[in-house]
Amino acid sequence: MSDRTPPSTRRLLVSGCDVLRVPPEGECDVLRAQDIVVTDGVIEEIRPTGAAAAVHAAEVIHGRGLLAVPGLVNAHTHSPMVLMRGAAEDVTVEGWFNDRVWPMESNLTAADVRLGARLACAEMIRSGVTAFADHYFFPEQIAEAVAETGLRADIAPTYFSSRGQEALEETVRFAETWHGGAGGRVTVSLGPHAPYTVDDGDLRILADHARRLGLRVHIHAAEHLEQTQSSLERRGITPIRVLHETGVLDAGALIAHGCGIVEQDLPLLAEYAGTTAVAYCPKVYLKHALSPLTPVRELLGAGLTVAVGTDGAAGHNTLDVWEALRLVALTQKQAVCDATWMTVSDTLRLAVRGGARALGLQQDIGALEPGMRADIVLTDLSGLHCRPLHDPRAALVYSARASDVRTVVVDGRVLMRDGRLLTVDVPALLDEADARVARILDTSHGRAVQHYDP
Amino acid sequence: MSDRTPPSTRRLLVSGCDVLRVPPEGECDVLRAQDIVVTDGVIEEIRPTGAAAAVHAAEVIHGRGLLAVPGLVNAHTHSPMVLMRGAAEDVTVEGWFNDRVWPMESNLTAADVRLGARLACAEMIRSGVTAFADHYFFPEQIAEAVAETGLRADIAPTYFSSRGQEALEETVRFAETWHGGAGGRVTVSLGPHAPYTVDDGDLRILADHARRLGLRVHIHAAEHLEQTQSSLERRGITPIRVLHETGVLDAGALIAHGCGIVEQDLPLLAEYAGTTAVAYCPKVYLKHALSPLTPVRELLGAGLTVAVGTDGAAGHNTLDVWEALRLVALTQKQAVCDATWMTVSDTLRLAVRGGARALGLQQDIGALEPGMRADIVLTDLSGLHCRPLHDPRAALVYSARASDVRTVVVDGRVLMRDGRLLTVDVPALLDEADARVARILDTSHGRAVQHYDP
Repeated sequence: MSDRTPPSTRRLLVSGCDVLRVPPEGECDVLRAQDIVVTDGVIEEIRPTGAAAAVHAAEVIHGRGLLAVPGLVNAHTHSPMVLMRGAAEDVTVEGWFNDRVWPMESNLTAADVRLGARLACAEMIRSGVTAFADHYFFPEQIAEAVAETGLRADIAPTYFSSRGQEALEETVRFAETWHGGAGGRVTVSLGPHAPYTVDDGDLRILADHARRLGLRVHIHAAEHLEQTQSSLERRGITPIRVLHETGVLDAGALIAHGCGIVEQDLPLLAEYAGTTAVAYCPKVYLKHALSPLTPVRELLGAGLTVAVGTDGAAGHNTLDVWEALRLVALTQKQAVCDATWMTVSDTLRLAVRGGARALGLQQDIGALEPGMRADIVLTDLSGLHCRPLHDPRAALVYSARASDVRTVVVDGRVLMRDGRLLTVDVPALLDEADARVARILDTSHGRAVQHYDP
Repeated sequence: MSDRTPPSTRRLLVSGCDVLRVPPEGECDVLRAQDIVVTDGVIEEIRPTGAAAAVHAAEVIHGRGLLAVPGLVNAHTHSPMVLMRGAAEDVTVEGWFNDRVWPMESNLTAADVRLGARLACAEMIRSGVTAFADHYFFPEQIAEAVAETGLRADIAPTYFSSRGQEALEETVRFAETWHGGAGGRVTVSLGPHAPYTVDDGDLRILADHARRLGLRVHIHAAEHLEQTQSSLERRGITPIRVLHETGVLDAGALIAHGCGIVEQDLPLLAEYAGTTAVAYCPKVYLKHALSPLTPVRELLGAGLTVAVGTDGAAGHNTLDVWEALRLVALTQKQAVCDATWMTVSDTLRLAVRGGARALGLQQDIGALEPGMRADIVLTDLSGLHCRPLHDPRAALVYSARASDVRTVVVDGRVLMRDGRLLTVDVPALLDEADARVARILDTSHGRAVQHYDP
């Protein structure tokens, strides 16, 4: 490393932190007392503190006593739904969709979505989420929020066949406009809602567009076993086979949930293992009383990618991936009756490398290594709930909270510094939200964006 | 209310806060903008702010913008095990006991336990836990830690039959010495470890002592289904029937876990419904891959008390009852396949009123009402993860974190004020812990406090 850095280079130094290494396989470990050198948004070098000549950096973050972890990836959410947080509790899945969420969503304007997305970005930055896969209406509003707040996102514009061909074409135009936007921080996937709300013809058209544009398809499928059974009764094939027959799997798919993935789906999914990911969002499955859960062990065994998501905050109540990844470990151990499975290291790997693959960004993010984009989260494990700190990896999975995140860097830019958000005016956003929520929550009109009958 | 307060009276005013009401049945609700007047450790009055003449109070806490909730109760823990947090991950139940925890526990000295209990008290105060039911060795050390930190606890001295009669008599002496100690904040239960580690004769002796002294018995029983099956095979009766036959249920029991409570136990338990409680600690059941879970619906249906616990931090990794109560709702909805069950209000009720009953303190704590001891937790729900705040009750169950706790009052004394612990020197404790842990974690000696073979 030379100090004769060209003057145009933007350099950031994170000094003296410990660094969590998350290898593609095997145990994670922690390197003590490292400097992370970031140049133009890329991790240039990670080296022991004091081991080499000083680096000239425009910006220095003192990381002593903090653990740098790869930015968490929220592999499935509907970010603007933070506006409906806590507004649909203790109801059935059908009631949740038909009486609460889909009627409330019919109230949303583009400005509401912009506001919700900004709030969501702020919440995610604060909790150490540096990238997310979104699926929602008014996607350009979300893209603008991502651009301005500095996060990284893959955005899928939600499409129902009931919205018609013009809406379908709009989603394709959004993709053409925004894929690779915000300096590469925004990517786009196509977003048919689900096989039970999008007909096969539209799925085929969108899969074709995805292949043409080099995009992936982000879709809800086999969300729970009843959906799979319903699909088998109505048309004789599982939702996963629908994705196969319509070309969605061939395009490369991020499948949300998959609690209803059944044994006969596994050989089919295995054919597309390299390009298929399943986002596992356990908090909402428990809350919606779903059983069985996503067959994560079988999916990983078949070579697929599994990643961690929160789903929208109308179900999950937070966008907190710490909470989600802890539940990944807890629910999967119980689901397969094996306390030695879904280890601490495997759980961390799903949350970062799994998430990166789910977004198609495994070349860029998911680990702190030279050549990767600098999405770095500095966590403080000195709190009473983490001490004594025998094993920082276990602390990350089983003790740490979003509030232990101190500093967040995305693409080499500092978005939160020592707990202070630098790209979002939170009080102004909250005032605006409070002024809008009564209208958003009103369901007296009887409208809904869709009827749930999978 | 008069201002001519006797000069000896210690008065605390919590002004302008919202107050969570947790009724014995039905929905919880929130009273806006209240003053809580506390006299000599008792809630004297809760009244709208500004509705009456000013109160002379030695101490005022400004509660505006905060929600006062009844102090959380941790109904089953082993507080000093915070020293082993994160030191037994990804292992079977047998490995957890026989290779990790029971060998490590053989290293513990009285001074270690004192330190661990102080750390645990600090962690619980910080997270809004105001009372806990403990079960451990060196109980007088825990009692001293509770006395000095200002918390409230029911302490059961752990007893194995392998320790012999002198040890049994010691536990009784501890009860005689400490029950009602620390100004009434310390109560004692007798603590036979479990029916598989304490023989029937000792269970009978301890149950007799409990009745004689007016104490309850805190015991692990039917921790999981295999234990119940093993008991049926070895001796033809379930662990719950053992508790009945030895008089433990008759004395009044706090049963830890109970995942292995089976249908035939329910009529038996129902006979003792008024004096029997089960502490449900879901995080450790998931982590230990246990299935089925405690039959909470059946237990509540039979009139028993169910409360929320963390178990020790060697399994739970935190002593965070927010985390535990959230998992109560999530796991119970899934366990009975009913998303409308274990509502937000019911969950909160278990965590406070259930906990109070589990500790035999339902006359004193578990709700913010005139005449109750003043165990008050001020929470700040203004964080991004709770906003917009449509429903503070839902936020408490599904969004809030221990780090949202600002101020904690126990028995009218302020133990944490705006995030600052007033009764614990945390840095000194942590230094001491770091100096002791290598010895505590060493299992090379091959000793153990007991062998697990239920």
